[in-house]
Amino acid sequence: MNKKSKWSINLGRIAGIEVRIHWTFFILFLYVLIVGRSQGQNLSDSLMMLAFILAVFFCVTLHEFGHALMAKKFGCKTRDITLLPIGGLARMNRLPENPSQEMLVALAGPFVNLVIAVILYVWLSLNDGLTELIDFAKLDAENFFPALFVANVVLAVFNLIPAFPMDGGRVLRALLSMRLPRHKATRIAGGVGQFIAILFVFIGLFYNPFLVFIGVFIFLGAQIETDYYQSKYLLRTFRIGDAMIHQFKPLHPSEPLSAAVNALLDGHASEFVVQDNSEPAGILTRKIILEALKTHGLDVPISQVMEKNFSVAEEEGLLDKAYEKMRMNNISIMPVVKGKKLVGLIDMENIMEFLLVRAAIANNKKLS
Amino acid sequence: MNKKSKWSINLGRIAGIEVRIHWTFFILFLYVLIVGRSQGQNLSDSLMMLAFILAVFFCVTLHEFGHALMAKKFGCKTRDITLLPIGGLARMNRLPENPSQEMLVALAGPFVNLVIAVILYVWLSLNDGLTELIDFAKLDAENFFPALFVANVVLAVFNLIPAFPMDGGRVLRALLSMRLPRHKATRIAGGVGQFIAILFVFIGLFYNPFLVFIGVFIFLGAQIETDYYQSKYLLRTFRIGDAMIHQFKPLHPSEPLSAAVNALLDGHASEFVVQDNSEPAGILTRKIILEALKTHGLDVPISQVMEKNFSVAEEEGLLDKAYEKMRMNNISIMPVVKGKKLVGLIDMENIMEFLLVRAAIANNKKLS
Repeated sequence: MNKKSKWSINLGRIAGIEVRIHWTFFILFLYVLIVGRSQGQNLSDSLMMLAFILAVFFCVTLHEFGHALMAKKFGCKTRDITLLPIGGLARMNRLPENPSQEMLVALAGPFVNLVIAVILYVWLSLNDGLTELIDFAKLDAENFFPALFVANVVLAVFNLIPAFPMDGGRVLRALLSMRLPRHKATRIAGGVGQFIAILFVFIGLFYNPFLVFIGVFIFLGAQIETDYYQSKYLLRTFRIGDAMIHQFKPLHPSEPLSAAVNALLDGHASEFVVQDNSEPAGILTRKIILEALKTHGLDVPISQVMEKNFSVAEEEGLLDKAYEKMRMNNISIMPVVKGKKLVGLIDMENIMEFLLVRAAIANNKKLS
Repeated sequence: MNKKSKWSINLGRIAGIEVRIHWTFFILFLYVLIVGRSQGQNLSDSLMMLAFILAVFFCVTLHEFGHALMAKKFGCKTRDITLLPIGGLARMNRLPENPSQEMLVALAGPFVNLVIAVILYVWLSLNDGLTELIDFAKLDAENFFPALFVANVVLAVFNLIPAFPMDGGRVLRALLSMRLPRHKATRIAGGVGQFIAILFVFIGLFYNPFLVFIGVFIFLGAQIETDYYQSKYLLRTFRIGDAMIHQFKPLHPSEPLSAAVNALLDGHASEFVVQDNSEPAGILTRKIILEALKTHGLDVPISQVMEKNFSVAEEEGLLDKAYEKMRMNNISIMPVVKGKKLVGLIDMENIMEFLLVRAAIANNKKLS
């Protein structure tokens, strides 16, 4: 049920974690090649440059594994690591909320680059390799590893800039979380992050287009995380039953797929619960329905194509916990049960509407 | 009911058309000021530079009015003109589909810049003003107008590059439309546009960040317009009744707003038809409900807050025409009537689902 990016390619699986590369990466290669050629590089210069980029991104991958392995210590599984031209991204199914654990996870990435830098430094010192002047525009066998040493120092230092949701920003949030409620700590760290992101965009406009992209990513990332923790905070006092949808028509496993298609086209719902003997038996999202329609046609029984591996929420459960679970695992719909009986469903859009309605009512009370 | 951008400021109304300026424009000002200062400009140089940018964007505004006034000749109303740092944007409630009319509308913009350029050229020639060397980095009273002459030539020529949806691309589409069905002409022009857009991004990465943004805009714009005409083509054989929603619960004007709020939270719908004596009396979108909740509270009767100025579709009407109307006027929901009686509703999401289901069924038939 996890959404996979169409825009990235699976490179393989290491320690149970899928490593993926984003297609924009090839733009980076092309860009570097063209810039290099236009500055008079020959073929071997260009190959050296590409080898250097690969070496740097190998270190970025190790950086992400630093986060992933530390998070694993605290019981948080990493789903995949994606390499983007502007850095790496580790997606976890949940993050440790204990501030000191969160700080250790955030620091583990830059720490990896620091360790690599120290190893390179010692090795180069023993071989008198650090006497070379480092010219990033013209790499050769002599200065390849000195340049890689510098790159790792830069990676460690840059990631420690307190621009949430970058590593340094996560450290800042963890520090704030020791004194403040989590949503407030996130809001402050997010504000600092957005401020620095704007600086990045400005500086990038003059010096480096990649910094512009990094700035935009940080700005949006900070907004998304701040909104998420704010929503979670606002949901904390409610039960799942408070925000669940009662008005819905469950499908039956023995019905043909055409029944689901009719429900999709004839009403507002685009995700459905399949019910058997008053218990939830599966779910159907629009994507599942369309895929099944393509491969099986209209007459296949729903039982054969429905997603049986789904999560269920208890009516009396806490809404913020359900919201967290749905967000972190990309779940769009959850059947709600009382005992084992299906009594409703929650979906992300409705939880958002619940919050909007609460805010509008609070706003009205303030006015009157 | 028109969505207005939160990110732009109303400058005023000329010939019934609202002229708006996007906030990112101020980034352009700041950028030019900082770059200028860092290159040793003094205050009067900077002011001259800002005056020049304003003069250029005045010409861009005239360019957009060229489109708007020509479109008006063919009965197409322009809603507003927005100035972005990368150019202007005229939003029309519909576009002429007659190829030669479309071509005239597309050409009217660059033609305005050509006329300005010719006027400046003649005037400068009579005053020996064209002998000055034009240095865009250092404008002064002497070369201000020669530079403006060059800028208008560039505006005319650049906009005629056949990168759909830019002006030149619209001319290309109009030419193709004379021989081909509209959706095919759009697909070809869109493909050419996206190819040129990628070139813009690449060239921009080396020379000018604004060209990167223009490239991204063109790429997305070409995709959106191609998808739109493709959808419209696929919908042409259907009636509105084929894709309408039957499963919905209309609200009643005398009910309190709380009934709409309950319907919003308790079900999948987020937009509602209000029905009186079996006829549609108004519509309620989520946005209207939330706004009404903020200002009036839960007890206000729906009749007082519903949108009474709405469009209605006939059950036997053509689906592609309804789709076009909804797209061009930002309508998200339309009550469907038979005679005067409310029989269903159509919304954009459901029309999209209708197309997806058709495509999936066609795909399945191809396989079997």
